[in-house]
Amino acid sequence: MIELYHLANAICAAKVRIALEEKGLDWTSIPVSDLRDEAYLAINPFGVVPTLVHNGVVFLESRIICEYLDEAFRAAPLVPATPLGRHRMRLWSKQIDDGLHLALYILGFSASGFGGAAMDDPATRALRLPREPFKRQVALELLRDGWSSPWIPVALDRARATVQAIEQSLAVDPWLAGADYSLADADFTPCIQRLEDLGLNSLWARAPALTGWWARLKARPSYEAAVTRWRTPADDARFAQGATRLAALLPDVL
Amino acid sequence: MIELYHLANAICAAKVRIALEEKGLDWTSIPVSDLRDEAYLAINPFGVVPTLVHNGVVFLESRIICEYLDEAFRAAPLVPATPLGRHRMRLWSKQIDDGLHLALYILGFSASGFGGAAMDDPATRALRLPREPFKRQVALELLRDGWSSPWIPVALDRARATVQAIEQSLAVDPWLAGADYSLADADFTPCIQRLEDLGLNSLWARAPALTGWWARLKARPSYEAAVTRWRTPADDARFAQGATRLAALLPDVL
Repeated sequence: MIELYHLANAICAAKVRIALEEKGLDWTSIPVSDLRDEAYLAINPFGVVPTLVHNGVVFLESRIICEYLDEAFRAAPLVPATPLGRHRMRLWSKQIDDGLHLALYILGFSASGFGGAAMDDPATRALRLPREPFKRQVALELLRDGWSSPWIPVALDRARATVQAIEQSLAVDPWLAGADYSLADADFTPCIQRLEDLGLNSLWARAPALTGWWARLKARPSYEAAVTRWRTPADDARFAQGATRLAALLPDVL
Repeated sequence: MIELYHLANAICAAKVRIALEEKGLDWTSIPVSDLRDEAYLAINPFGVVPTLVHNGVVFLESRIICEYLDEAFRAAPLVPATPLGRHRMRLWSKQIDDGLHLALYILGFSASGFGGAAMDDPATRALRLPREPFKRQVALELLRDGWSSPWIPVALDRARATVQAIEQSLAVDPWLAGADYSLADADFTPCIQRLEDLGLNSLWARAPALTGWWARLKARPSYEAAVTRWRTPADDARFAQGATRLAALLPDVL
């Protein structure tokens, strides 16, 4: 039995939903209403989503949850068969953890107007700021410095560099790890989705290989099952509002 | 043929040297004299060490280099045999990438007196600051704020939390991934070494399981071959000086 504790719009949760759908696994959805709830922290001390529970055993961290799923369930493999292929896949997925995820957080938090007026309340702030201390420190600096924060251009540079690297790779091979779709493509799907939601698809306006790959990713049944169906019209409206805020800012920092 | 581009005192390079020694593989040492050299950047665009070249193919990123080595060379396995064991190993190793490594950089950079007076020179600063934009921004803030930087207590908290988590795990099992030594233990070896070099072994003064595990790690032949033999008396003196600086600071931030 597979249970997934998740949030509809969390990038890391979407990664695991995509892997589950691509592998055709049955799973039970457990939406997490409060990341700081003691009962949830007891199974995920990091206080983040997702958490996968397989036959009562807890698995943390989306990227390695996906590798676990592929090793535990051999049908519909999402991991290349060779050590070289697996290294190539991991090198892509690792880059999300090593900076792109933080970049998307910074851009999303900025686009939200730094959490809005509710963050003036110390209790709300304590609850909503990231639990991980480094990310939390970045968030505190964003709250202090607002649109003039150096973290925003750093995040934009990171997003731009990622798009360029993907374009270079896809100009040679159809998928990130080579000839076949893999967890690398699955892991990047919600990241590209987030950039698009933030109105940053201009980053790949002159990236035809990425544009074609993104269309192929969206055409896969896993995209509808793991991404689209979890979105509400309220999510769409919120992202559109954030994209408008970012667009007003971008001319100054790009 | 295995070639390793590395630096004697880089944590991530030591991880791969340990894995190579534990697996008993022959390898050729290629010390990197300049991380910004165009020829080196051509094989490692991140401008970091290590880079492993196996039969002419380039492999980046220490943690996944080690997994590659274990998959490409099956003798003396350093990866657990079960999917659950592998997930447990990866969850440990991933935590180095997800914060501990940055914490060690912050503590080491602070202990060095923020690079010393040489960093006042813009050219030296441009050369010595990290290339990765997020780490670079943290380094710039450390240069600006010095010992009052909030990044220092964040880094210390991270180191302390890591020590506590390791102690809890080792109170149950002899090695991080369970019954057997694995890449998780290998990956943490240079991290614990760095904390010790910075005089922060007080963090595990009341952690008997970690203390015993650390003694067992140091007793392995791989420790002498991959860590000790790469150190010079000048390194020892530099670390001792840094530890003295940190010790003077610690009462204020702990």
